[in-house]
Amino acid sequence: MSRSKQGNMLIAQSGGPSMVINQSLVGAVLEAGKHACVRRIFGSLHGIRGILEEKLVDLRRESAANLEAVAATPSSALGTVRRKPSPEDCARIFEVLRKYDVRYFFYIGGNDSAETAHIISEAARQAAYPMRCFHIPKTIDNDLRENDHTPGFGSAARFVAQAVMGDDLDNRALPGVKIDVIMGRHAGFLTAASALARVAPGDGPHLVYCPERPFSMDGFVRDVQAVYKRLGRCVVAVSEGIADENGEAVATKFSREVDSHGNVQLSGSGALGDLLAAEIKARAGISRVRADTFGYLQRSFPGCISEVDAREARAVGAAAVRAACGGDADGSIVIRRLPGGRYRVRYERVPLRKVARDTRSMPASYINKEGNNVTRAFLDYARPLVGRLPRPGRLKAVPVKTA
Amino acid sequence: MSRSKQGNMLIAQSGGPSMVINQSLVGAVLEAGKHACVRRIFGSLHGIRGILEEKLVDLRRESAANLEAVAATPSSALGTVRRKPSPEDCARIFEVLRKYDVRYFFYIGGNDSAETAHIISEAARQAAYPMRCFHIPKTIDNDLRENDHTPGFGSAARFVAQAVMGDDLDNRALPGVKIDVIMGRHAGFLTAASALARVAPGDGPHLVYCPERPFSMDGFVRDVQAVYKRLGRCVVAVSEGIADENGEAVATKFSREVDSHGNVQLSGSGALGDLLAAEIKARAGISRVRADTFGYLQRSFPGCISEVDAREARAVGAAAVRAACGGDADGSIVIRRLPGGRYRVRYERVPLRKVARDTRSMPASYINKEGNNVTRAFLDYARPLVGRLPRPGRLKAVPVKTA
Repeated sequence: MSRSKQGNMLIAQSGGPSMVINQSLVGAVLEAGKHACVRRIFGSLHGIRGILEEKLVDLRRESAANLEAVAATPSSALGTVRRKPSPEDCARIFEVLRKYDVRYFFYIGGNDSAETAHIISEAARQAAYPMRCFHIPKTIDNDLRENDHTPGFGSAARFVAQAVMGDDLDNRALPGVKIDVIMGRHAGFLTAASALARVAPGDGPHLVYCPERPFSMDGFVRDVQAVYKRLGRCVVAVSEGIADENGEAVATKFSREVDSHGNVQLSGSGALGDLLAAEIKARAGISRVRADTFGYLQRSFPGCISEVDAREARAVGAAAVRAACGGDADGSIVIRRLPGGRYRVRYERVPLRKVARDTRSMPASYINKEGNNVTRAFLDYARPLVGRLPRPGRLKAVPVKTA
Repeated sequence: MSRSKQGNMLIAQSGGPSMVINQSLVGAVLEAGKHACVRRIFGSLHGIRGILEEKLVDLRRESAANLEAVAATPSSALGTVRRKPSPEDCARIFEVLRKYDVRYFFYIGGNDSAETAHIISEAARQAAYPMRCFHIPKTIDNDLRENDHTPGFGSAARFVAQAVMGDDLDNRALPGVKIDVIMGRHAGFLTAASALARVAPGDGPHLVYCPERPFSMDGFVRDVQAVYKRLGRCVVAVSEGIADENGEAVATKFSREVDSHGNVQLSGSGALGDLLAAEIKARAGISRVRADTFGYLQRSFPGCISEVDAREARAVGAAAVRAACGGDADGSIVIRRLPGGRYRVRYERVPLRKVARDTRSMPASYINKEGNNVTRAFLDYARPLVGRLPRPGRLKAVPVKTA
């Protein structure tokens, strides 16, 4: 395809929503407006389902003001889907893309969405159908390969850090054991981000369990007992994806619901938190034990957005359109962090296969030896991504001498 | 006691924390600084426990800047407790109050805390110990009698409304049934506040179940099926305190933990949400069903505070000190809403017995006939208390005509 071949563009959103996925949508749409090669701009409703069912909307009919309002709104404005295209789907998708003269295809999502984009890209190549096909990164799990971090993570991490900060204040006021279950199937980044809540010594979370390390119930009970003995309270951050030594997720003992990518449902249930709380009550001899599962608020709560995250989410959308209009290769846009003291990033195109399917998890250096906390290296990594957090006020609390 | 008898003041926080309970603390401390009758200002750590154990701090040693930082921080800065004083406790409390020459006693909390203040007030009267004893209202449940609403409710309601707004956007993007379990033992105000999330027709929550009406599982399943049939999705807000026709809380089938006021533990567990989700999956033939329990975030999340609520929480603290220093009766400060179009309130002293022990629940006019939604009257009542909510942006989504 020549560099400036004219044609229509289609964009869609896929996988779990995030707080800034609409920034990427709007970034791409606004950028496309600057390129003569893009004629019409179609949005497909609910990812590839909208293509299969020809449910497309005309994104050139949206005002700039409305696009900005949408960009600032959590969740996927076009709707989303969890669906891997079958060979039949692929054939049908092509039929529709041809029919609408789509030459620029953008799919915003995580690794499964990158895989879908890759499948469509390969099919287009084999069909000798000239079409630029780009994946735009999004995942609160932060588990896309090649990326320093992914759009969506910073805002979700901000929510988690603020939530655990509040929860720690609550637990300090009314002591006991508090267990917070945090999203993240295989990658512990979001759970680890809870540690950003700490401001002063003694602040929770006191224990952090990521899915990268095998979870032992005995070790967990011992850890909680030790903290409780020392502080008279204990705040625990635990990933929904924690698994035992055989790799079996502790939560799957309660749920067997799977999506078409083969992922077992972990979120939308309080079972894991309740199980862990019951173990502590029964075995650690501690009476006040509570568990909260943060659930979907982590990816959808309005009014808790990381500015850096919002800015980068918009930038990757724009970068994908620039790359598609200016080059002759398909790909995914990745975020690289530049070396040096000040936080700066660069956006880069990589081949789709490099981010599709497989995910990454936390580097070993981000988790302590005991597997129950994060390291300074993680905190340094994560801090610039969430922005400045609220700083809790505390009483000096000067004791009164006995009268 | 004469109007300006000099003596020391003691203030403490009790019951569940809230996002603005420290405003009341700071409001009282700053006001006390203006009254010559107040000499030292003691804070008791963890409510009456701090008196019993003589764990007092000197609040005159806090800088104004630090007090302001504390005021803006969720949870109870002095720590809190759930404990009803026994006759032995009362005797010991007097011993300590006398020892520290406490003549002004302030207890911030809900109905149980008002009862504690009442017990102490009565005991002081019988002992002919001159002491002004005031309750300062706080409860996210909004269930104190005599009050139009209570400090803490507006901010918790704001959190709930924002959370459900985000959740509805999420559910719109990835349809299914979503059940959100919201705090509120006997009063449905907080659950009802979820309805403030609605902006446009079709917005969730589509169903709202408050504990004021008997909950029928059959009716619930039918309601969800009807909404799902109409919209292809359904967002449900349900109170943790919903009870069947015999008054038995649905959640108590899973928990029997009680505090010393006889309250059963409902929060800090996902069991109720999971039970309701399982019923819908099994009986309504809907596959994607999720439940989140908002849990302690509702009372502790930093960065989601209603300005009206913060202002009023500070005002009731100050009003209690003014009433104590300027009058000769004990009491509780209540918030009255003034008639007229513009939202305005007045603070008033009432006798402690009028707010102690018993609680109030939602007026019948706030719940629809079917018992599965709130009325316009409720929305008009609640809107001024939470402040202006984020307004989600939405695509015009003009359909593309078939090419």
